[in-house]
Amino acid sequence: MTGVTLHDIQAAARRIAPYVHHTPVMSSELINRDAGCDILFKCENLQKVGAFKARGAHNAVLCLDQRQRSAGVATHSSGNHAAALALAASHFGVPAYIVMPDNAPATKVAAVRAYGGDITFCDATLAARESTLEAVCRRSGATFIPPYDHPDVIAGQGSCALELAGQLALSPDFLLTPVGGGGLLAGCAVARKKPLPNTRGIGAEPAGADDARRSFVSGLWQPQLSPDTVADGMRTSLGQLNFDLISRHVDDILCADDRAIIHAPRLIWSRMKLVVE
Amino acid sequence: MTGVTLHDIQAAARRIAPYVHHTPVMSSELINRDAGCDILFKCENLQKVGAFKARGAHNAVLCLDQRQRSAGVATHSSGNHAAALALAASHFGVPAYIVMPDNAPATKVAAVRAYGGDITFCDATLAARESTLEAVCRRSGATFIPPYDHPDVIAGQGSCALELAGQLALSPDFLLTPVGGGGLLAGCAVARKKPLPNTRGIGAEPAGADDARRSFVSGLWQPQLSPDTVADGMRTSLGQLNFDLISRHVDDILCADDRAIIHAPRLIWSRMKLVVE
Repeated sequence: MTGVTLHDIQAAARRIAPYVHHTPVMSSELINRDAGCDILFKCENLQKVGAFKARGAHNAVLCLDQRQRSAGVATHSSGNHAAALALAASHFGVPAYIVMPDNAPATKVAAVRAYGGDITFCDATLAARESTLEAVCRRSGATFIPPYDHPDVIAGQGSCALELAGQLALSPDFLLTPVGGGGLLAGCAVARKKPLPNTRGIGAEPAGADDARRSFVSGLWQPQLSPDTVADGMRTSLGQLNFDLISRHVDDILCADDRAIIHAPRLIWSRMKLVVE
Repeated sequence: MTGVTLHDIQAAARRIAPYVHHTPVMSSELINRDAGCDILFKCENLQKVGAFKARGAHNAVLCLDQRQRSAGVATHSSGNHAAALALAASHFGVPAYIVMPDNAPATKVAAVRAYGGDITFCDATLAARESTLEAVCRRSGATFIPPYDHPDVIAGQGSCALELAGQLALSPDFLLTPVGGGGLLAGCAVARKKPLPNTRGIGAEPAGADDARRSFVSGLWQPQLSPDTVADGMRTSLGQLNFDLISRHVDDILCADDRAIIHAPRLIWSRMKLVVE
């Protein structure tokens, strides 16, 4: 079993620093007053491509050797990982082959194109995505960079918590991290332990896609079979490598229902002028 | 005629620093690529109350003497100045009397209330707003803090350009500043001259409320009689004090039509994850 250590995350943070943003930490007096506590927001929505995914994708591309990298990278995704991988590849002048379902939203397709991704469309089934990706990799020699269940991707995402720790004067009581596939949560849970020793690591998951919570509580990895939540980016199943790291380094996983998931972005939009998914 | 000098703006910047945010400067590779030039955004939407108005309001309240300040401040506004003044007053534990038209949007009313403003509603005419404000000031002894045409307000808004100059490695070709009542444009035009000597100061105004441009070009102050633009915060007439400062310190004023005004926030929302008005 491949682990991810604080050392891996520190190395990732140094590696990706020239390519990604050092994102700000923000707060709102009104939100703190309503919540009855101080909440600090690590603004990864202001990261390159608008998501923390830029961290993992850059680290994964940077970890390839010269020969691998020059053949390009590939993934299947309709989301931010695709855009992030296209951007990372463009920084090194190598191709990014992106397999997307033919029902992918036009905005996502446009984003991947804008970052220079080479898109191959396929049927909107997991089987079609996987077989198309395999064919693309065979034909091009590109390396598959999975969206979350990969040590280099996890180490990249973990750099977010390391960076946050450097921006805080105190160790906060809780570090809340969203969990879909689990790369961000796993990486941040590992990264926070030393620099923020008094901070409990908490995962945050939609109630309608609570496979991480069920897996964490039962101690048995349980894939998400029929997600039912508006949070479309969180419907993915927890990765197995991430499950192992989360089991060992996370203190708890809490769920939010769709009403809260719809309310929160509106609150942050109106109070903080930030667009969050 | 009361002028506003760089010295006034430097003093304002020092005075308000403990109460307002040092806002970030951001950029987008994709927007730069589309525009064919480098654009830096000074993110005053991330300022307290979501607008640069926090700067001028705090400076104006801080410039009052102890006796004046303790009697409170007042204004008539349905926009960000009202919320900014309410917040500034709350920082010193003094009342902010806000006169609002009874058709003011519920969100604006809620924002002023959240910051502790004491609201008096009136009919939705300028005459009613002015007479109600006068009555409120007479009854309470509060000092009227106008939204833009006031030296302390202008000096506060100007601190924005001073702060920006400190964040830039180079003097950019142009500094574009929106102009409604003109406090921000006047203050920034004065503030930029010394720290950014190679930067031309340009005002940006809706084509459907182009009183500042007409005044600037003709050299005669022309109020805005029948504004016709979606940019509701920009429908106000240019202040006379601001007209004088703008005439002397601004290089040009350019107009944007409503199509561009509607397009820009969507672009910034999707590319930069920022909410702008």
